Amino acid sequence: MYETKYLNKIESPAFVKNLNENEIKELCGEIRDTLIDTVSLNGGHLASNLGVVELTVALHKMFDSPTDKIIWDVGHQIYTHKLLTGRFLEFSTLRKEGGISGYSRPSESDHDVFYSGHSGTSVSSALGVAAANAISGSGGYAVSVIGDGSFTGGMVYEAMNNAGRAGSKLIVILNENEMSISGNVGSLARYLAVIRSKPEYYKMKEETQKALNRIPVIGKKTADHLFKIKKLAKETLYGSNLFEDLGFRYMGPVDGHDVKLLCEALDTAKMINIPVLLHVYTTKGKGYDPAEREPGKFHGVPRFDIQTGEQVSDGVSFSSTFGEYMCETARKDKTLCAITAAMSIGTGLQRFESEFGSRFFDVGIAEEHAVTFASGLSKQGFKPVVAIYSTFLQRAYDQILHDGALQKLKIVLAIDRAGFVGEDGETHQGIFDAAFLNSIPGVTIYSPSSYMELRSALTNAVFHDNGLAAVRYPRGEEYAFPNDFNFSYGDFDVYGDSEAPAAIITYGRISAFAARAVNRLKNRGINAKLVKLNKIKPIPEKAVSAVLGCEAVFFFEEGVKSAGIGEKTALMLLERGFSGRYELTAVDDCFVPQASVSSQLRKFRLDAGGMEAVVCRAFQENLRNRHERKNKA
Amino acid sequence: MYETKYLNKIESPAFVKNLNENEIKELCGEIRDTLIDTVSLNGGHLASNLGVVELTVALHKMFDSPTDKIIWDVGHQIYTHKLLTGRFLEFSTLRKEGGISGYSRPSESDHDVFYSGHSGTSVSSALGVAAANAISGSGGYAVSVIGDGSFTGGMVYEAMNNAGRAGSKLIVILNENEMSISGNVGSLARYLAVIRSKPEYYKMKEETQKALNRIPVIGKKTADHLFKIKKLAKETLYGSNLFEDLGFRYMGPVDGHDVKLLCEALDTAKMINIPVLLHVYTTKGKGYDPAEREPGKFHGVPRFDIQTGEQVSDGVSFSSTFGEYMCETARKDKTLCAITAAMSIGTGLQRFESEFGSRFFDVGIAEEHAVTFASGLSKQGFKPVVAIYSTFLQRAYDQILHDGALQKLKIVLAIDRAGFVGEDGETHQGIFDAAFLNSIPGVTIYSPSSYMELRSALTNAVFHDNGLAAVRYPRGEEYAFPNDFNFSYGDFDVYGDSEAPAAIITYGRISAFAARAVNRLKNRGINAKLVKLNKIKPIPEKAVSAVLGCEAVFFFEEGVKSAGIGEKTALMLLERGFSGRYELTAVDDCFVPQASVSSQLRKFRLDAGGMEAVVCRAFQENLRNRHERKNKA
Repeated sequence: MYETKYLNKIESPAFVKNLNENEIKELCGEIRDTLIDTVSLNGGHLASNLGVVELTVALHKMFDSPTDKIIWDVGHQIYTHKLLTGRFLEFSTLRKEGGISGYSRPSESDHDVFYSGHSGTSVSSALGVAAANAISGSGGYAVSVIGDGSFTGGMVYEAMNNAGRAGSKLIVILNENEMSISGNVGSLARYLAVIRSKPEYYKMKEETQKALNRIPVIGKKTADHLFKIKKLAKETLYGSNLFEDLGFRYMGPVDGHDVKLLCEALDTAKMINIPVLLHVYTTKGKGYDPAEREPGKFHGVPRFDIQTGEQVSDGVSFSSTFGEYMCETARKDKTLCAITAAMSIGTGLQRFESEFGSRFFDVGIAEEHAVTFASGLSKQGFKPVVAIYSTFLQRAYDQILHDGALQKLKIVLAIDRAGFVGEDGETHQGIFDAAFLNSIPGVTIYSPSSYMELRSALTNAVFHDNGLAAVRYPRGEEYAFPNDFNFSYGDFDVYGDSEAPAAIITYGRISAFAARAVNRLKNRGINAKLVKLNKIKPIPEKAVSAVLGCEAVFFFEEGVKSAGIGEKTALMLLERGFSGRYELTAVDDCFVPQASVSSQLRKFRLDAGGMEAVVCRAFQENLRNRHERKNKA
Repeated sequence: MYETKYLNKIESPAFVKNLNENEIKELCGEIRDTLIDTVSLNGGHLASNLGVVELTVALHKMFDSPTDKIIWDVGHQIYTHKLLTGRFLEFSTLRKEGGISGYSRPSESDHDVFYSGHSGTSVSSALGVAAANAISGSGGYAVSVIGDGSFTGGMVYEAMNNAGRAGSKLIVILNENEMSISGNVGSLARYLAVIRSKPEYYKMKEETQKALNRIPVIGKKTADHLFKIKKLAKETLYGSNLFEDLGFRYMGPVDGHDVKLLCEALDTAKMINIPVLLHVYTTKGKGYDPAEREPGKFHGVPRFDIQTGEQVSDGVSFSSTFGEYMCETARKDKTLCAITAAMSIGTGLQRFESEFGSRFFDVGIAEEHAVTFASGLSKQGFKPVVAIYSTFLQRAYDQILHDGALQKLKIVLAIDRAGFVGEDGETHQGIFDAAFLNSIPGVTIYSPSSYMELRSALTNAVFHDNGLAAVRYPRGEEYAFPNDFNFSYGDFDVYGDSEAPAAIITYGRISAFAARAVNRLKNRGINAKLVKLNKIKPIPEKAVSAVLGCEAVFFFEEGVKSAGIGEKTALMLLERGFSGRYELTAVDDCFVPQASVSSQLRKFRLDAGGMEAVVCRAFQENLRNRHERKNKA
């Protein structure tokens, strides 16, 4: 148990309203210690959270959550908010099974407004809250807190463009930390830098302060005061600016580590009668040297040593194998390009970026654009590989369909983090891609289960397949197969007795578990074979034939049951006259909360033990049924 | 056959390069006549196409297609481009089966760069082309032509933000016609109006002309000249502007009906060494009075009378029924809201808009934002109904999942144009929604087959279901059911002999055909029943039970086979021990080109005759098999 002066006393965010300047400083210190300690043990997002400690305190001083809705974009900067809203005692369970989530979770607290984990949604949802409040006459504010990284996503502009309808109680806090996950990209980043470099901007801040000091609180002079603020803004800003063009009153930039200044700016923002964009600048990793020095490395981290900052090494993974393959191939083929949506580190493309800069495109958190942009490169004879996490690729469903598959152009999707992702929980699971890609005509999908298969699949996708091909692979490492497993590097593999009366079908990393399950079942006297799909769209006809004569077929899928590959296999079997038992084990119409990947696999009976149990139960039922029939006869 | 002076002679767009001012005027007249005549007979997009006649001529004068890539956003302004690229003779087949498409189709002509039909993709794909050209050193330009309506979509900003990487041969033509489909929305529209209202902007155009007149062509003075242009831009524009903030050189606005001015502007744009945004203003419907007066009505039109402008009346439809239901319900329930993405007319919400303005939100062509915005309204106790065409809802897959279903908040999706849409062809078919929604946990989906069922489904979705519920319905009118069909308004209906050994399962409007097929089969001595699903997610357990004992089950689906409802039904049957024949007739891994809806249904055997034939063939095969077995025995 922690020894704290403040944190253990906080039951509601109102607590911070009565603290003086010095107490707030102490509190912020406690918060930073807690963040560093907890993340060093549990892993999580560190640099982004350290950057917004003071901003979070200021927000809770100036707003009344949950009447006022503070909406954290993505959510990977929400830890301080959790500590200030009565969750300090459970905070050591951060990201653990059954524990506190690393993102916004309404089921945890009324202060978490929406479930979140994807980028760029907070302005839209805050706008919805503000519009509703404007209709109903409710008094609450809607506050979106969003980083400059998220601002590269198009949804934010869609929302900004609509803000005129939001009424006066919408405040967007643009948290510029000069660093989205892989370094900022595009014109907006340059634009913000220009604003910050202009001394006139700072003047406004000081003038605002003075103006504020002169008026009593909110009173009859408010209107007058507001007029002055507006005029000031007009005069000191370089003409108009992008945010004002989009219908906001721009304020800032304000030092995001100065609680007093932040509170004054927020107080002013509350009085302005149109939506406000308050530009705040913060330092990622603030207060922890290793994170300040290398904020990218300390964005999402595994366990690490607090003294040295040294992280549990990642080693070889599917992502690193993908990165190596891309570099090797780019050396030989001058048309190979790589596109990432702000995830060059996560997808293993850092070396590609430095070695093949002209063929590397980090488009920002803009998955939609990434795919359509790829179609343009492809049209001119290049081979674009778009590397995106499974969960974020959901953003580009229409682009994959309309600008990808329909064009019949060479586009490769490298889908990282396919399957369960563990501690990031329900907003990040890669369990939908097989299903949603399954619905798109002409798409080829590979689901390799080993590094070598990943390479083989990429070679097929990049050099042999026509049109859009996807290669999906999990977070982390490959699982070990039994020594006698022979990889064919074809469309599917069969393991075990090919004449066995029972069959397990599966694909991806859990194939390794399925092979072990086959061996375990053998020891129990159950003769089952494994049919391991390497290509899951189209499902290889011969793989279906290989199980058509079986008495029982068990499909295991690390993904959603509905619309997935197991469902399609059922149809193929049924259409071909299969009349045995068929059982599909998959994620059945639910979201999957945080836990370790192994726990998630176990829970859904997708590990070796789970598969064994599913097959055994079926055999026992079958024996029982036979027995009953015999007794009746 | 037309009598034309120019059009019938055009084999390549180079033709227009040699015409003088007067000839161009005559050509533009011919083009307008052809557009009006053809669309009056075939239906199509009129106002948007009439608006860009001169712009298209100017583009083909100044660029060399297909080396230079002219990319038309959406494509509903591409008709003149088709006429100028050698397709005049086939133009009378516009939108007909096997004829010229109403959108960009590379299979028709090398001058059509990408298949398109969805909004806001052209800047991304042009950027891809330009980036590729920059790497390979190819000389071609990439030109995106995009309306102010499309500019409300976020993808455009994602692309604009990345334009710095495009090199100098990217030109975006922003065609401002003061009118997206349902009138422009949001801050951008106001912003463009402000730019246009500032006389300084026009000065630039004149100054540019003068500067151009003074220099020979491209020579050693080009650099000097460019410097002047830049300086001019800086001086005459109000500080910077939004497009320059995003890394473009802004030029304009230019009168989009003046070919000479347009050519001069394009010539300048070609010389500028960064990406250029050329702002052009045009009049929708230009040259045809009824369309100029009511451009919204003449955006997408059915056949009409050229003299009067009178259109084949739409009458009662699923869309109009939806609109009526919304108004009736909004009168009683003050929390009901409607959201549309620039389609208030198309979705039947015009009356709702005028009667309940404060609860009506047209967010622009921003489907992603629409859904997430709805989650904000819902959080505050409102009941948002998001009305979007099936094909455009593809854009919001992630938002439906992450900001909709996951939140467990009340959100209703009213999915118009579900199923085949006819003449708009492969980019507009509503054949994916059932499949992609099928993959999302906790979603309820209704697929009514009549107006009354639509009302019943909406009532369930708005008042009874928890979480996100979708109601999908087709374009146009309901189909007639046999008189003895009893609608239960429950989760499913059974028609015919409930003990019949064969069953047809289907959902949506084609259920009417299925009922007729049941009667036709009866006349042929085949006893089949119809199980008509009204709720397709979750599939009603009892509906599955109702066919479990059948010898043969035939599922007909007006949508994709892969990941759809028929596939899921196959799994449910197989898991429950079904061992009869199962046949799923649906759209199998292909895109569906333009034709009438009835032709599309016929082609995929989804009309009464098709269903009858599928079932009959199966019965004949079955008889033959029995016969063969008998002979063998």
